Amino acid sequence: MSDTSIMSQMDMTAMANVIDACSACMQACMMCADSMAGMEGMGKCAALCANCADMCDTMMRMMLRPMGMERDSMVAMLEACIAMCRVCRDECSTHMQMSETAAMCATACDACMTACQDMLTAMRNV
Amino acid sequence: MSDTSIMSQMDMTAMANVIDACSACMQACMMCADSMAGMEGMGKCAALCANCADMCDTMMRMMLRPMGMERDSMVAMLEACIAMCRVCRDECSTHMQMSETAAMCATACDACMTACQDMLTAMRNV
Amino acid sequence: MSDTSIMSQMDMTAMANVIDACSACMQACMMCADSMAGMEGMGKCAALCANCADMCDTMMRMMLRPMGMERDSMVAMLEACIAMCRVCRDECSTHMQMSETAAMCATACDACMTACQDMLTAMRNV
Amino acid sequence: MSDTSIMSQMDMTAMANVIDACSACMQACMMCADSMAGMEGMGKCAALCANCADMCDTMMRMMLRPMGMERDSMVAMLEACIAMCRVCRDECSTHMQMSETAAMCATACDACMTACQDMLTAMRNV
Repeated sequence: MSDTSIMSQMDMTAMANVIDACSACMQACMMCADSMAGMEGMGKCAALCANCADMCDTMMRMMLRPMGMERDSMVAMLEACIAMCRVCRDECSTHMQMSETAAMCATACDACMTACQDMLTAMRNV
Repeated sequence: MSDTSIMSQMDMTAMANVIDACSACMQACMMCADSMAGMEGMGKCAALCANCADMCDTMMRMMLRPMGMERDSMVAMLEACIAMCRVCRDECSTHMQMSETAAMCATACDACMTACQDMLTAMRNV
Repeated sequence: MSDTSIMSQMDMTAMANVIDACSACMQACMMCADSMAGMEGMGKCAALCANCADMCDTMMRMMLRPMGMERDSMVAMLEACIAMCRVCRDECSTHMQMSETAAMCATACDACMTACQDMLTAMRNV
Repeated sequence: MSDTSIMSQMDMTAMANVIDACSACMQACMMCADSMAGMEGMGKCAALCANCADMCDTMMRMMLRPMGMERDSMVAMLEACIAMCRVCRDECSTHMQMSETAAMCATACDACMTACQDMLTAMRNV
């Protein structure tokens, strides 16, 4: 099976969902990182959110380049994005009571994990 | 073991090497993507280089945030970066004869893989 | 007037419009850059789209950091974003007949210019 | 004068200096933003550093795409980068006594301003 066929057989709905979920997650993480920066003891949360924002940005960019659709790198990046979103969600969940921004960030991370997982599942069925 | 101790026990030389190798690889990939984008039939190579540039940029940014040092996300991103660099190196290697930019890109990808692998090894020894 | 007051007096609708327009423009530019890459003679268009995507990404990120709201840097970046979107729109407009992706990109660049211009106007009225 | 000639007449030393200065400034700003994010009351400094890092990253990426070399967008982005580096340098200068990271960041911002200004001067002489 050629690389080109990977693209043509991909679940376009799953791809569109990853793009939308990464875009929303990036924005939520950026705002959460900014909100947490400068609060005493919240430096780790700010850094994890900034890392998650960068990773979602890159994941989205890769999805927006159909010509670069290649299985190994795509699977590895989806798995990395899921790992990062899980860490960020778990961290921000502990601050939900005191921060609406953190609550929104945790929700966006969770949705992004689901979208990436669905994409992985779709790729494994090709 | 706390997250903080992960950072303090990390091999600082390995981290500095990842930062330098990712920075060099990002620059080489950006130039290769630009060069290939103007050549007929080289769209796939251009897209893989652009993906690799974005992933190295994000990997480097994560290394530059000591407060966000967290094992699971870091290991997953290092593995993703290695996978992407391997794909980009393999693609660009096939164009080395006709393009000095591609040759430089393949070399930078290879060095970046090595630096990320060394960092993974160092993390597993903590 | 303190920096904090700049933020509090800002037109929140204008800011939200810039974020949405930059996000849409980044995505359209990414896809157009990928589509153009590898087509004979379209390297310049691909590069301008890639530049515009990166600039819109950065513009959006700055809007998502309320604590970094500072007049001089914000005005200069809005002006740079408008200049870049104009160049990209003018280039992609010339390829609208042959490419639906270029047509979408030109439209997104135009909308982004308008959103950034409205934001500049709102800032000058503060 | 065609766009291609802009590139061929450009001062290659000035371009290489901008790339190096932006790369160094991005790294210094990333580390300063991370360091400040964990300090109470330093949220504004962290956000300005994060903005400056993103802008230097984009400026560097544009320089690494020779095919996208276009006068209006390049001049506007160089001017925006200078404005941002000035704001970040001024902010970080006030924290030099208490933070070596801030001192390094202020120095890197100053060097980046100089490199961008030299590039603008070189472009105006073409």
